[in-house]
Amino acid sequence: MAAKEPKKAWQEIAASSQKRRDETIAAIDPPIPDVPSELPRNVTHIPRELLTTKEVEITESSPEEILEELRTGRWSAFNVTNAFLRRAGLAQKLCNCITELLPQRALERAKYLDRYFAEHKTPIGPLHGLPISVKEHLTMKGLDINAGFVGWVGRVGEEDSHILRLLWNAGAVFYVRTTQPQTLMHLETSSNLYGVTVNPFNRELTSGGSSGGEGALLGLRGSCLGIGTDIGGSIRSPAANNGVFGLKPTSYRLPVYGWSAAMLGEEQIIPCIGPMSTSLEGIKLFMKVLIDQRPWLTEPSLLPFEWRDSKDWLRREDGKRRLKVAVLWDDGIVKPHPPIIAALQAMVHGMKKSEDISVVNWKPYKHDLAWEIIASLYFCDGGDEEMAALESSGEPLRPLSEFILKENPHTRRRSIDEVWKLTVRREQYKAAYAKIWNDTGKDGDVVDVILCPVGPGAAPPLDCSRYWGYTSQWNLLDYPALVFPITKSNPDRDAKDLDYVPRNEQDRYNYDLYDPEKYRDAPISLQLVGRRYEDEKVIQALDFIMEETGWVFDSKMIDRPGI
Amino acid sequence: MAAKEPKKAWQEIAASSQKRRDETIAAIDPPIPDVPSELPRNVTHIPRELLTTKEVEITESSPEEILEELRTGRWSAFNVTNAFLRRAGLAQKLCNCITELLPQRALERAKYLDRYFAEHKTPIGPLHGLPISVKEHLTMKGLDINAGFVGWVGRVGEEDSHILRLLWNAGAVFYVRTTQPQTLMHLETSSNLYGVTVNPFNRELTSGGSSGGEGALLGLRGSCLGIGTDIGGSIRSPAANNGVFGLKPTSYRLPVYGWSAAMLGEEQIIPCIGPMSTSLEGIKLFMKVLIDQRPWLTEPSLLPFEWRDSKDWLRREDGKRRLKVAVLWDDGIVKPHPPIIAALQAMVHGMKKSEDISVVNWKPYKHDLAWEIIASLYFCDGGDEEMAALESSGEPLRPLSEFILKENPHTRRRSIDEVWKLTVRREQYKAAYAKIWNDTGKDGDVVDVILCPVGPGAAPPLDCSRYWGYTSQWNLLDYPALVFPITKSNPDRDAKDLDYVPRNEQDRYNYDLYDPEKYRDAPISLQLVGRRYEDEKVIQALDFIMEETGWVFDSKMIDRPGI
Repeated sequence: MAAKEPKKAWQEIAASSQKRRDETIAAIDPPIPDVPSELPRNVTHIPRELLTTKEVEITESSPEEILEELRTGRWSAFNVTNAFLRRAGLAQKLCNCITELLPQRALERAKYLDRYFAEHKTPIGPLHGLPISVKEHLTMKGLDINAGFVGWVGRVGEEDSHILRLLWNAGAVFYVRTTQPQTLMHLETSSNLYGVTVNPFNRELTSGGSSGGEGALLGLRGSCLGIGTDIGGSIRSPAANNGVFGLKPTSYRLPVYGWSAAMLGEEQIIPCIGPMSTSLEGIKLFMKVLIDQRPWLTEPSLLPFEWRDSKDWLRREDGKRRLKVAVLWDDGIVKPHPPIIAALQAMVHGMKKSEDISVVNWKPYKHDLAWEIIASLYFCDGGDEEMAALESSGEPLRPLSEFILKENPHTRRRSIDEVWKLTVRREQYKAAYAKIWNDTGKDGDVVDVILCPVGPGAAPPLDCSRYWGYTSQWNLLDYPALVFPITKSNPDRDAKDLDYVPRNEQDRYNYDLYDPEKYRDAPISLQLVGRRYEDEKVIQALDFIMEETGWVFDSKMIDRPGI
Repeated sequence: MAAKEPKKAWQEIAASSQKRRDETIAAIDPPIPDVPSELPRNVTHIPRELLTTKEVEITESSPEEILEELRTGRWSAFNVTNAFLRRAGLAQKLCNCITELLPQRALERAKYLDRYFAEHKTPIGPLHGLPISVKEHLTMKGLDINAGFVGWVGRVGEEDSHILRLLWNAGAVFYVRTTQPQTLMHLETSSNLYGVTVNPFNRELTSGGSSGGEGALLGLRGSCLGIGTDIGGSIRSPAANNGVFGLKPTSYRLPVYGWSAAMLGEEQIIPCIGPMSTSLEGIKLFMKVLIDQRPWLTEPSLLPFEWRDSKDWLRREDGKRRLKVAVLWDDGIVKPHPPIIAALQAMVHGMKKSEDISVVNWKPYKHDLAWEIIASLYFCDGGDEEMAALESSGEPLRPLSEFILKENPHTRRRSIDEVWKLTVRREQYKAAYAKIWNDTGKDGDVVDVILCPVGPGAAPPLDCSRYWGYTSQWNLLDYPALVFPITKSNPDRDAKDLDYVPRNEQDRYNYDLYDPEKYRDAPISLQLVGRRYEDEKVIQALDFIMEETGWVFDSKMIDRPGI
């Protein structure tokens, strides 16, 4: 009888995963420079000091700028790819945000594209030569798909995820896979496989999650366009924490076949894929390129509707463009920290100068009930599948796994009858919210979009992202939600309100977290939310606000002064 | 201590429901004539003998003809409504298809509309004065909503269903509620409350179900437009069995808020509402009028997309209209009876004469697996909720409740984990089917629609509708499916194939059912199926086939000779 191979300890598996990651980084040519052994809190300036001017120019360009250079043949796909490989490798040393680089397949792909361009004098598709970063969650052929569980290491993808195939068709280059947290159900990114992904603007803060590898990488400009996933804030929290754009689209618009996760088949709350980018154009491009390929023909759960960006969603019957924005200052449960309120105030102040933007207040409707419903529907098996995946290696629970699986009073095994009852409550809540939205039109125009925080503060200190309400609210309602950067935390400006009396335990927790100095340099972002399936309108609304207020988002935002 | 009121026997409750129904019929003026005590098998000619010429003219007009008369003021809403009230009352005596007439509220409404028209010289909306029949399933304010359970009698609607409010806004008149089977999960219509609804073309056959009250009423022209619901064939089986049109739309296009049923909150297989009508124009009108009112603003699970009938779905790139039809002759499990095959042959023969229609065969892909998946997902609580509703009154199970709840090997209580696994299998099956559809385009045009049977025969004898595969297949796939009448059974033409060797038990059951004489006069209908959300295309395809082949559907189809 053959002796059974002894089971490896989880630490051993993690060490070998990290070793494999480091080998992919070591393979980059020219080698990635070392970083100081004592890193400062804010490391965003470091890549500029260690990369070539050309590499900095490439990696700090927006997706649309890069594509323009590639389309005209001024830049080669090879050089662009190698620049991003180098900056991503560096980002790993600064923030621990990647699980592996893919130099061989990326550079081969880039060379192929360059040959194609040389031969045909035209790009292969709308994303010709654009490097795209990919959360490890999404299956890639021949590579590990562990979903953040040590016990799943060694599961290997049989074919690329549907979304990757479509981006590939359009000319993309995949060059890096990014970190994800244990269980994928944190608003941070920490796992026993790869440790903690930290925030490049302030390494004592979280990069957010669960797409926090993407977030930190984008924040450091080791990527200009990446793919995240979101069931409670997992695209938006890292986009916000790292000062980039992120869109959680309405459900069933983008293809999800071929991701790896526990609880596949769960449909009560729909998980979404969406883009994260250093520019709003990157977000638009991603959506359009995918939807133009009619992914519903292959993945029938998707809705067969075009990307409707040729329609002007803000044009009124009188021919003029107008926008009505409702501001949700506070969800009534947890009061946002001063820098968030200040950002909202600045936005409102700017918008009020425009004749064509009207601003009203949005009164939150039972956001605590919304959390109760969504939190009850997240783990209808009581977390058994997640726990089994954890137990398969014996790895311990990370603090935020403990928080969502064990401390969350709504996590328990449900009978199908209970699930049906919760589903009915979900629909009732959605109908009540829709009615409130409809009623805003009683005295004139109906509200177009809601402007609100992305969380009750900027990126929290590690293991402290315990309030999901500002993002999960829109998952429950299945509304599209777009995150965009505004400014950075500034201790000299954003004093703590020492007289504030917290409303409840969650509010106290959040209040106690705030200390202006701790949050220094953390990006401040906000969220624009639209009605279900008005993804295109939300994007146009942000463009319109920018036009009307004269604000500019610079893809080199690292040094962009606050408004 | 007050004595508790003794619980009524279920027979007593049923008797009082029937008494109430009969009282509403007795209230009609002029009184509804008696029918012969010995009814013939085919009773479709009787209304013509007992109603006035004007009443026959009105009730045998199509919805679009009636609306035209109302719109021009040639007919009054009052007269139209009263004609349908009388014919519906008569239909009850012939087929047992209604649960109550609503003379008071219908005639009041009609009078209001007539006054409105007199005053404004214009209709109140696109359905001004059109009587619409309503399956009892749909809540009406102040009326019983028992979902076919004796134990639920006495539950009273608090407000009208969403769909009824929208039809009302458009000018409709609700005048009758129609029967539904115990549990709503039969392809027939038999309950302990109201007994069995029979087929007006042949009273020994079923009207189909679960919208069988609608089916029989439409077949007898006691309605020209009615509302059915469908999770496995419940619109299409009664439409087919009674020779009228019926559309099961793709999910989440029409509003469903406010129906009464067990297992609310169940989403793995989406139940749909749809129209049944004596004309194809009736089907179109219903869809358009509802979707034009943007029901998604109130019911957020609905998809915010227009009724896209201004687009020409058959126009090709060269500017010509063309159609590619795939014929599913047989699902490989249960072979259809000879009249169904003959109808398909006649259709194909006609279509092949057109240069602009190409016809290919559709090879069914594992329709037995499809049934296994959908049947497993119908009652994930093992039927407990249905059984509790039955047991609350002590009523016995009807044979087809026994069939679907007890004999169905796939009915059992599932854990949420099992439901997720089944959901994944459902999605895999849908993807496999989509791939087959895509592959039809490899050598040219992709298939536009599938033409297939609605069931493995015409309306079966009572309690014999035990094969759902030809309809439930499209519920699983969530494809739109349109049923339309072709001809009637004719024993002199459709001989039994005495040499046929059945493939399996279900096939034998169906084979044994067939006896040409038993099925005399039963309508023969077929089904046109489209890809998900191509509801508009399916309708245009049927219109195109009719144009190209020169066939005409007459809303007075009762006497229409076969093709």
